[in-house]
Amino acid sequence: MSIPGQLNPSPRLLMGPGPCDVHPRVLSAMTTPLLGHLDPQFLAIMSETQELLRQVFQTTNPLTIPISGTGTAGMETCLVNLLEPGDRALICTAGYFGNRMVEIAQRAGAQVTVQQRPWGHVFELDELRTALASVRPKVLGIVTAETSTGAWQDVAQLGTLCHEFDTLLVTDCVTSLGCTPIAVDAWQIDAAFSCSQKGLACPPGLAPVTFSPRAVQVLKSRKTRVQSWYLDLSLIESYWGTDRAYHHTAPITMIYALREGLRLVLEEGLEARFARHRRNHQALKAGLEALGLQYLAAPGCQLPQLNAVRLPPGVDDLAGRKRLLNEFGIEVGGGLGEFKGQIWRIGLMGYNSRPNCVFQVLAALEQVLRGAGVTVAPGVGVAAAEQAYAS
Amino acid sequence: MSIPGQLNPSPRLLMGPGPCDVHPRVLSAMTTPLLGHLDPQFLAIMSETQELLRQVFQTTNPLTIPISGTGTAGMETCLVNLLEPGDRALICTAGYFGNRMVEIAQRAGAQVTVQQRPWGHVFELDELRTALASVRPKVLGIVTAETSTGAWQDVAQLGTLCHEFDTLLVTDCVTSLGCTPIAVDAWQIDAAFSCSQKGLACPPGLAPVTFSPRAVQVLKSRKTRVQSWYLDLSLIESYWGTDRAYHHTAPITMIYALREGLRLVLEEGLEARFARHRRNHQALKAGLEALGLQYLAAPGCQLPQLNAVRLPPGVDDLAGRKRLLNEFGIEVGGGLGEFKGQIWRIGLMGYNSRPNCVFQVLAALEQVLRGAGVTVAPGVGVAAAEQAYAS
Repeated sequence: MSIPGQLNPSPRLLMGPGPCDVHPRVLSAMTTPLLGHLDPQFLAIMSETQELLRQVFQTTNPLTIPISGTGTAGMETCLVNLLEPGDRALICTAGYFGNRMVEIAQRAGAQVTVQQRPWGHVFELDELRTALASVRPKVLGIVTAETSTGAWQDVAQLGTLCHEFDTLLVTDCVTSLGCTPIAVDAWQIDAAFSCSQKGLACPPGLAPVTFSPRAVQVLKSRKTRVQSWYLDLSLIESYWGTDRAYHHTAPITMIYALREGLRLVLEEGLEARFARHRRNHQALKAGLEALGLQYLAAPGCQLPQLNAVRLPPGVDDLAGRKRLLNEFGIEVGGGLGEFKGQIWRIGLMGYNSRPNCVFQVLAALEQVLRGAGVTVAPGVGVAAAEQAYAS
Repeated sequence: MSIPGQLNPSPRLLMGPGPCDVHPRVLSAMTTPLLGHLDPQFLAIMSETQELLRQVFQTTNPLTIPISGTGTAGMETCLVNLLEPGDRALICTAGYFGNRMVEIAQRAGAQVTVQQRPWGHVFELDELRTALASVRPKVLGIVTAETSTGAWQDVAQLGTLCHEFDTLLVTDCVTSLGCTPIAVDAWQIDAAFSCSQKGLACPPGLAPVTFSPRAVQVLKSRKTRVQSWYLDLSLIESYWGTDRAYHHTAPITMIYALREGLRLVLEEGLEARFARHRRNHQALKAGLEALGLQYLAAPGCQLPQLNAVRLPPGVDDLAGRKRLLNEFGIEVGGGLGEFKGQIWRIGLMGYNSRPNCVFQVLAALEQVLRGAGVTVAPGVGVAAAEQAYAS
């Protein structure tokens, strides 16, 4: 029986669609010895984590907790708790993760109407008003930051619109939380889910969710049991809420990580953090465009934290990413679904939204593009980024 | 907006039903910088982890993976993947976690027949043969180590019996894996699930599962989609298997932890590890009985890793555990369900199955019992344990 050796991965800079690199303070927090999941000291840590999470979601929702799974578990939690068999759901899809919501809502037994736009596009209020009026769904699901395309979907007015039709607004905030504004209360979002490994700069493994009082009301008046016991919020809430009734063993170390990640977000301040993401994005964008790369999403709806650019003719996706990884230790993401082989997705998320990361990736990209036969003047990407920082 | 300070929990010795303390090498492995979830180096780490997991489950099942959730997510994974609406399931319950299987199987739409025994008891082959012949279920679910009672259920012959009736055997190995033998192939278990935070001495957050070829065949011939997208093994398998298709972002740091925990198990050797758990149990048991405490489970079916003992008259559950925690920094578990307030559950799991832990808890218990008015001679528990070690 052979036992593999100690972990010894090569150094990496994670500039794909997530995970990004974990903040060193978070890694350090994860070495804290375990408390039991019912220890009064751990219960206090849970309450603190919830309060931090509320501040980051910009909400006062009591039901604001990290689900014990990755981002998709958060998506499934929101949908299976709010939808019962036969309920109507309207899901907006203009990318891979919108499609995932469709799939999960269907498995929850919902009658799903798909509101579709070409990948990389975003939805306008008017078309959604028309769709809401026609479908009259119980739930409208939409992605605020489509990880597969880098498109930034504005949802600031959508909650009000949904409520005109007695519809709950469910938003995918997996790639937005901690990078771009998500104002759950001000925007009247009823359920939002996110992940730990992007804007919050923790390892993957937790899915923060928040439910508005309106969503909680719907949850409480269900006629059927939630199909998933593990993700049943009415049970999970009795552990995270005042009852402290055992449901499942909380992933203690991951909660330690999340608490530290959230502390870092709030020490920096939300506005400062969003501004940092914008600033580094503008520099990266200047550099990418100087290298001749074009954004997939239209101007005005490009995510600062996820820059999806089209590959120039002649550049092979896999060979290029392999060189970036093996020679420079830099990971960027390839395309998903219909953009497979056609785009690269460059993340500037959380801890990795830093000038050093911008310069490194631009310098490496320049060499990879040149190696693939693209004409690029030496240093042109970095120079453009420097200029953007200076202006 | 106030931000709580750095994590600063009091020192604890976790001797409840889990989590137990994490081995220092595992905590250290968790500080390893992240690789991306599709990085070739991470894919290699996944394969290594699967191979280690197979050795610990004593199986060659290709479909052997850690589910991205806690133990209950493993239970739900096994049941929702194998059961379709209308399928018959026979679930054996003699404690809290048997009941949980009933609940989850019902939510999967199964027709559940409950085979019940008083809490703390175990099932005999004969009664299960009768039940199988009568119910003819697709799935028989049983707990190998009932965390709520400390009862040790033998299942070595049960797989063969189940297969006589064309029934799949699903076993809860949450509290057994890494502590007491689980021989998935030799015992013809079709699906088993466990957790990371007990016998494997990692933090909670992963649920190892393994599916026999027979179970995989059932999975592949489903007529309906698995109700959970997040836990759909046919999709998860295409990430962990040869396709390496993205499903959800793997909890990378937890996989690092699990790999290190499994390495530790196999470095020690399974037989040596089981012997260590038996030896420390015998010492603890001698000590507990010298203190006048009686086991809930009958002799011959007492789990070495989880010692459930009845509280003597006059000892208050909450006050006693509070004193153990606050004065001695020791956590033991209280009773669940019908044993609430009546028993304490003392774990000797994984890293914490050590003489030092045995002595500490016996010394502390002695003082807490005396404080509650029980007559105990000084040092009697520790002396009995010492004698057991010496014999």
